[in-house]
Amino acid sequence: MSKKLTKREEDYSKWYNELVVKADLADNSGVRGCMVIKPYGYAIWEKIQAELDRMFKETGHVNAYFPLFIPKSYLSKEAAHVEGFAKECAVVTHYRLKNAEDGNGIIVDPEAKLEEELIVRPTSETIIWDTYKKWIQSYRDLPILVNQWANVVRWEMRTRLFLRTAEFLWQEGHTAHATRKEAVAEAEQMMNIYAEFAENFMAVPVIKGLKTESERFAGAEETYCIEALMQDGKALQAGTSHFLGQNFAKAFDVKFTNKEGGQDYVWATSWGVSTRLMGALIMTHSDDNGLVLPPKLAPIQVVIVPIYKGDEQLETISERVQPLLKELRAKGISVKYDDRDTYKPGWKFNEYELKGVPVRLAVGQRDMENGTYEVARRDTLEKETVSAGNIVSKIESLLEDIQKNIYKKALDYRTSHITKVDSFEEFKGLLETKGGFFAAHWDGTAETEEKIKELTKATIRCIPLDFKEEKGVCMFSGKPSKGRVLFAKAY
Amino acid sequence: MSKKLTKREEDYSKWYNELVVKADLADNSGVRGCMVIKPYGYAIWEKIQAELDRMFKETGHVNAYFPLFIPKSYLSKEAAHVEGFAKECAVVTHYRLKNAEDGNGIIVDPEAKLEEELIVRPTSETIIWDTYKKWIQSYRDLPILVNQWANVVRWEMRTRLFLRTAEFLWQEGHTAHATRKEAVAEAEQMMNIYAEFAENFMAVPVIKGLKTESERFAGAEETYCIEALMQDGKALQAGTSHFLGQNFAKAFDVKFTNKEGGQDYVWATSWGVSTRLMGALIMTHSDDNGLVLPPKLAPIQVVIVPIYKGDEQLETISERVQPLLKELRAKGISVKYDDRDTYKPGWKFNEYELKGVPVRLAVGQRDMENGTYEVARRDTLEKETVSAGNIVSKIESLLEDIQKNIYKKALDYRTSHITKVDSFEEFKGLLETKGGFFAAHWDGTAETEEKIKELTKATIRCIPLDFKEEKGVCMFSGKPSKGRVLFAKAY
Repeated sequence: MSKKLTKREEDYSKWYNELVVKADLADNSGVRGCMVIKPYGYAIWEKIQAELDRMFKETGHVNAYFPLFIPKSYLSKEAAHVEGFAKECAVVTHYRLKNAEDGNGIIVDPEAKLEEELIVRPTSETIIWDTYKKWIQSYRDLPILVNQWANVVRWEMRTRLFLRTAEFLWQEGHTAHATRKEAVAEAEQMMNIYAEFAENFMAVPVIKGLKTESERFAGAEETYCIEALMQDGKALQAGTSHFLGQNFAKAFDVKFTNKEGGQDYVWATSWGVSTRLMGALIMTHSDDNGLVLPPKLAPIQVVIVPIYKGDEQLETISERVQPLLKELRAKGISVKYDDRDTYKPGWKFNEYELKGVPVRLAVGQRDMENGTYEVARRDTLEKETVSAGNIVSKIESLLEDIQKNIYKKALDYRTSHITKVDSFEEFKGLLETKGGFFAAHWDGTAETEEKIKELTKATIRCIPLDFKEEKGVCMFSGKPSKGRVLFAKAY
Repeated sequence: MSKKLTKREEDYSKWYNELVVKADLADNSGVRGCMVIKPYGYAIWEKIQAELDRMFKETGHVNAYFPLFIPKSYLSKEAAHVEGFAKECAVVTHYRLKNAEDGNGIIVDPEAKLEEELIVRPTSETIIWDTYKKWIQSYRDLPILVNQWANVVRWEMRTRLFLRTAEFLWQEGHTAHATRKEAVAEAEQMMNIYAEFAENFMAVPVIKGLKTESERFAGAEETYCIEALMQDGKALQAGTSHFLGQNFAKAFDVKFTNKEGGQDYVWATSWGVSTRLMGALIMTHSDDNGLVLPPKLAPIQVVIVPIYKGDEQLETISERVQPLLKELRAKGISVKYDDRDTYKPGWKFNEYELKGVPVRLAVGQRDMENGTYEVARRDTLEKETVSAGNIVSKIESLLEDIQKNIYKKALDYRTSHITKVDSFEEFKGLLETKGGFFAAHWDGTAETEEKIKELTKATIRCIPLDFKEEKGVCMFSGKPSKGRVLFAKAY
């Protein structure tokens, strides 16, 4: 398989698909819409998981595990929720196969029909609130701050690796509180944690905001979100945190005795990020040569490639490299020494460029003589020669610098792609020619929102948290507006 | 809910169920046969995961993720495999619900029927080997050493928390090799890793062995296993590692070009342990007061309970405890200071005994005056008074000692419960009165094995790896036998 990628400006979507497969991140499987996450892709996901899990635990959350299956009747208990998820779910109806009577293969055993169908969880609010009913009696049992790492299934018709798959991996936090205020604060806290993670680890700048009513989670009173901007000018929702009010507590009859001895319904939040983050990571930083990874999430941070002829020369190089490997590992830097003789140095350079390894060292005969390494950084593709004595501190500063640099690059791109528009014509034009976010006045109605979506495919990504009151008129309807919201086409 | 448990000798099975629920490890859910793993139970599972994951990676394995669903036709490709799993599987037949036309609730949409039914994975050999076909062309692509942490579903009719549930969590390793020898070595290596983990971390002694043909994994040529012995004299299979020969490579047509340029089928292994380990952990060590946990897997290793009257006294105690907490945490010891005023010290003592916290410190007025702590160890329930100056080293040595002591206790029990028997009458009698493993001669036929199972419910747990040739006659059939195998009743 050729390692060459389609160029982004030729076909961004094709470039993305090729990159995901060729960089060994994921691949399509034999099951419609379900992906295989390959070891290199999964190693990045494990790093994402580890950091988020740490952040969740530092803020008092604990992990638990709830059933994969949701009885059909549970899903129906919250009206908006079932409306949102019933149309695209995997339904288990039988619990046995048997040999066909005509001897032709194996069939579903009609006698093994379930009394009640089970839905493969698209999200776990219902099964979890059915459980919380058993856990919560008194204010002393609150808050409950639980998270779950799990797989979920939504029967999407058009799927794309990481961005939209029938099955995906995610975490879903589900918390229970004694007061509205506490629950709102939790939902906001988790949005902030997601934003911090996106910016500091993924190097992806995000805009924090609120979803409009029509874009809210099915069953939520308020949905907080973080929105990122991809290189092709399309937005990507990178995480959501929902204030659920008392909707699920009422649907599952979860009350608690408050300090005054009265009975109250419990207040709830839920929040999640998924393997979609992999898509955001890839599309924010990568280039026509392949992946560009932030050092904080790169499975391999440094690769060292020896350039040699014959075993003897390799041995001399290896002797020099061994102490360096040891020193870097002792500093917690993950480094790979690729001395395979089955591939040439040029092939390896391309391979690690494709895979986004942040720093590449090469060492050949001349470097041995001069006591140097050739150092290349993946983000800018710049090379320099560094003396062996300075190599460790050079690597350390490069890793920090790459992390900062790719963030800054993404931030600059985004800053130059938030455009104020005041007329619908201007909006439509720039949406096609420039892309990005558009700060525009909106009259606050779902009707206008829907119309704009129909005509342009753009949606309101969020009402930014730093929303400023500014009198104006809706760019579409001309009706009065209180301030600007952010429109964009989105993944 | 009363925290008192049924006594083990009264009703072992009832004791187990109560303990699992009351110690907050897991609970039944609203979905038949599926459990909720509660935060305290999940915290133990996370420690199990972390250690195993480290051991897998140290031996060159990487993680990946494969689809939850398996097309029905895949399952059928390996004859023994489908025979083993088709009778108890969850089958997805539809991908949408809709509102009933009579307005009465929500129903499965008959128009959203899948062309081919999907099985919720009971194990992933088939979907993985379908994928490996794409990954493997040449000997250079081998070995593949992949592990997956996942949920699986087997539609068991009689379920028990952790021991047998319709859905459970596990890891499944799936490796591909160029030679039979390499694959056999891998299967043996993983059995050894499981044994090392069981003994060094869970403090559960295990016997390594081979399964007989009738007890083998569906599709394996050889199944290696580790067998543990519970306090009630029943065995528990704690982990299995399968040498799969070329069965799955042939079923999915996975060949590779060898070094000589010829085409060979790939050799395979698979291996797994599951949340069943939680059952083994609980039943090996716990007592009538609750859980006993090995310090290496205890989420809380040390708890400190202040005994005080009034805020002022609590403050003095807390001031003394803070530096100790800091010192213990710096040493990587997980410690909880429970200064809640909503519960009395006696209630807390019972609570932490029930939850198996290895070391408990109490500090009251007299301890403050004398500069001491009262230290209690969970395994023996012994208490002593220790001066503040020695408390850290005391805790360290206690944690080590408890880990060793509970292992030794379990080993002593097992040693005294491996009984040599030579007649079937003796076997039947001791099986009921004493329990444990029975080393007996067997004629090597599946027929005899089946008969013994019918008559006694005991099965051959394994042919121990240290099997010694010893001429004898089968205790049941009187036919010649080459050596003793291990029988037991099992979970």
